[in-house]
Amino acid sequence: MNVDGRYYRTIWLDEDGATVRVIDQTRLPFRFETRALRSLDDAADAIKEMIVRGAPLIGVTGAYGLALAARQDASDAGLAQACETLLRTRPTAINLRWALDRVRAKLLAAPVSERVAVAYAESAAIADEDAACCEAIGDHGAKLIREAAARKGGRVNILTHCNAGWLATVDWGTALAPIYKAARAGVDLHVWVDETRPRNQGASLTAFELGGEGIAHSVIADNAGGHLMQHGEVDLCIVGSDRTTRAGDVCNKIGTYLKALAAQANGVPFYVALPASTFDWRLSNGVAEIPIEERGADEVSYISGRTDGGEILRVRVTPPASPARNFAFDVTPARHVTALITERGVCAANEAAIGAMFPEAARGG
Amino acid sequence: MNVDGRYYRTIWLDEDGATVRVIDQTRLPFRFETRALRSLDDAADAIKEMIVRGAPLIGVTGAYGLALAARQDASDAGLAQACETLLRTRPTAINLRWALDRVRAKLLAAPVSERVAVAYAESAAIADEDAACCEAIGDHGAKLIREAAARKGGRVNILTHCNAGWLATVDWGTALAPIYKAARAGVDLHVWVDETRPRNQGASLTAFELGGEGIAHSVIADNAGGHLMQHGEVDLCIVGSDRTTRAGDVCNKIGTYLKALAAQANGVPFYVALPASTFDWRLSNGVAEIPIEERGADEVSYISGRTDGGEILRVRVTPPASPARNFAFDVTPARHVTALITERGVCAANEAAIGAMFPEAARGG
Repeated sequence: MNVDGRYYRTIWLDEDGATVRVIDQTRLPFRFETRALRSLDDAADAIKEMIVRGAPLIGVTGAYGLALAARQDASDAGLAQACETLLRTRPTAINLRWALDRVRAKLLAAPVSERVAVAYAESAAIADEDAACCEAIGDHGAKLIREAAARKGGRVNILTHCNAGWLATVDWGTALAPIYKAARAGVDLHVWVDETRPRNQGASLTAFELGGEGIAHSVIADNAGGHLMQHGEVDLCIVGSDRTTRAGDVCNKIGTYLKALAAQANGVPFYVALPASTFDWRLSNGVAEIPIEERGADEVSYISGRTDGGEILRVRVTPPASPARNFAFDVTPARHVTALITERGVCAANEAAIGAMFPEAARGG
Repeated sequence: MNVDGRYYRTIWLDEDGATVRVIDQTRLPFRFETRALRSLDDAADAIKEMIVRGAPLIGVTGAYGLALAARQDASDAGLAQACETLLRTRPTAINLRWALDRVRAKLLAAPVSERVAVAYAESAAIADEDAACCEAIGDHGAKLIREAAARKGGRVNILTHCNAGWLATVDWGTALAPIYKAARAGVDLHVWVDETRPRNQGASLTAFELGGEGIAHSVIADNAGGHLMQHGEVDLCIVGSDRTTRAGDVCNKIGTYLKALAAQANGVPFYVALPASTFDWRLSNGVAEIPIEERGADEVSYISGRTDGGEILRVRVTPPASPARNFAFDVTPARHVTALITERGVCAANEAAIGAMFPEAARGG
C-alpha cells in the first residue's frame, strides 16, 4: 500500500536479489525506516524485537530467514538448526511454524546446491499468496461497504479496532483491506480509529496506514464507540481476528467484544475479516476454550510516544504503588457477529455457514 | 480520606482561620502538594487551572472564594464583582453558580461588618453538607457490596470508571464512597480501575485514592472490562453521574455506556452513585436531550505522564497528520442501570421510583 505516495509491501527483496528488507514497525508512526536482513540472525532479531509483527508477516519473515540461513549453510543439519533459532523467537506464532515447515519440506526435497534458490522462491510464493488472500478479503468486504453507501446515499462511517492492516500482513491487511478496496473504487468513507489501549496499535499503525492511503479518519479513545453508535455515527464495524472457532466465535484484540455489544445494541453491522488460516477447527466455544494471554503490566502503566522535542520515550501514567493487569485479547461470541469476511466470500458466523464455505477443513477438524 | 496515613478533605482552612488550602490535583498521582488560596484571584485561578475539579469541590471553592473576596471588599458592589470573576472561570459549572448564589444571598442579608464571618461559616456549611451527602451515599451503597459479599462468600470484585471519588468532592466521593464504607467495615474487596482515556482520571486519581485508603486494586485498560465480566471476574460495577434524567438515564464519562452494556449482557449489577443535585428534572430522554461536550483533540493525541527521570511531560501517540475527536461523555439509558445509589437510599432507575424518592423535586420539575 502507499506511504508518502510510494507503493510498499511490508517485506521485499533489495535489487541484489538476496537482501531482505522490512519496514521497522517499532519506529512508526513517527519515523518510516526500513531495515535490511542479511543473515539468519537479522531475521530472528526482526521477529523477536517486533520490527515485524502480525501473524502473516512473521511467517513470511521466518521463511525468508530460512533462505538467508541456506546461503550460509544449506545442509539438512544447518536448516534444522536455523528452524530452531527462528521458532524460538515467537514460540506461540502458529504461522511461523507453518511457514518454516513448508519451506523446509521443499528444501529437503531439493539438492543442496539448489536450496538457496528454492528457499527464496518458496518465500516469495508464501508472500504472494498472503497478499492475494488479503486482496480477496478486500474485494468481498468492499461489496458490503458499497452496499452500505448505496443504502445511505452519503459518506460511510466505519469503525475499526486495533491494526488489522497491511502492516500486519504482506499487503492489503484483513480488516482494512475492504476499506482500501472501497476507497479506491471511489466510495466516500471515513474511518473511526480506536486507539486500542494499551499498545495503541490503532492510534499509531492504523492511523498511519490510512493517512498513507489518503483515507479520511479520526482517532478516538476506545471509550467513544458506544456513544458514536448511539447517535448514528457508525454505519458498520470491521475488525480482524487472531483465532476463530468453527462456530464463528472471534478472539481478537482486547476491547473488540465491547464494540460488538454496542453494535448489536444499536443495530450496527459488525463484520470480522479473517483469512481461513485463523480458524481453529478444534474449537467450538471461544469464551470457554480460548485461553487469554496476560501480558506485562508495564504496557498499561507506561505509554510510549514522541515528546515535543522529537524524542521517543515512555511515560508512567499510574501511581508507582498501583498494580495493573493487562489482558491482551477477548472473545466475541458468534451471536454478536453479523458476518465473517473471508478470502472465499462473506458468510454468517455459525457452524453450518462456515462449514459450507470451508467444507474440506471443517470435515477434517 | 487517607493519604499516606493522614486524613484529608479536598479543601480546608489553615490554622489562621482565613487561608483556604486545597490539594493541587494537577500534580497527582506523582506529587501530593497543597496550595494556599489567600485572595479572590487565587480561588479563581485554582478553579480555572483545574487545581480543583469535580462539581461539588468547584462549588465549595467558589464559596470560599467569595469569603476571601469579602475580606478585601464586602460591599454589595464588591461581592457582585467577585461573583462575576468566579463564574467566568467555569461558566457551565452549575454547582458553582448554585454555591455562589447561596453564599451571596446570606451576605446581602447581613451587615457589611459581619459578612466575612458569615461567608466563611456558609462555605463551611456547604462543605459539611457535601461531605455528609457523600457519606450517606457511601452508607447506602455499602449495603449492596456487603450483600454481594455474603452471596459470594469471598472477595468482591468491583469495576469503576473514571474518578467519582473524594478528590471530586469534599470527602468520600460518590461512586467510591460505598467502596470506602464497605472496606472500612471489613468487607474483602478488590477494585478494577478503568484507566479512563483520554484524560486517565482512573489511572491517576482513582488509583491514587484507593492506594491511600489501602484498598486492593488493579488498573486496567478501558478495553478489558467486557472480558472480565464474561469470565465472572466482576461482581458489580459502580460509576458516578454528571447529569441524570428524571427517568434515570445517566450522563457520565465517555465509556460508561460500554461497561453498562457488558454488565447487562453478563448479568453483572450496574449501579450509579449520585447526589440528587445531578438530577436534571426537565429531562426524560438522555440520549436525545443531553448534548455531549466535544473537547480538544490534543487530549486524545497526547498523553501526560512521568518519565523515568522524574519529569512530568506529554508525549504524542498519533501520527502528526491524523486528526482525533474527543467526546467527553456518553449517556447510559436507564434500562441498562440496575439501580441508583443516592443520599436518600437505593432506588430503581425509572421515573416512578425516582419520583417516589424525591417527590418534592420531581413534582417541581
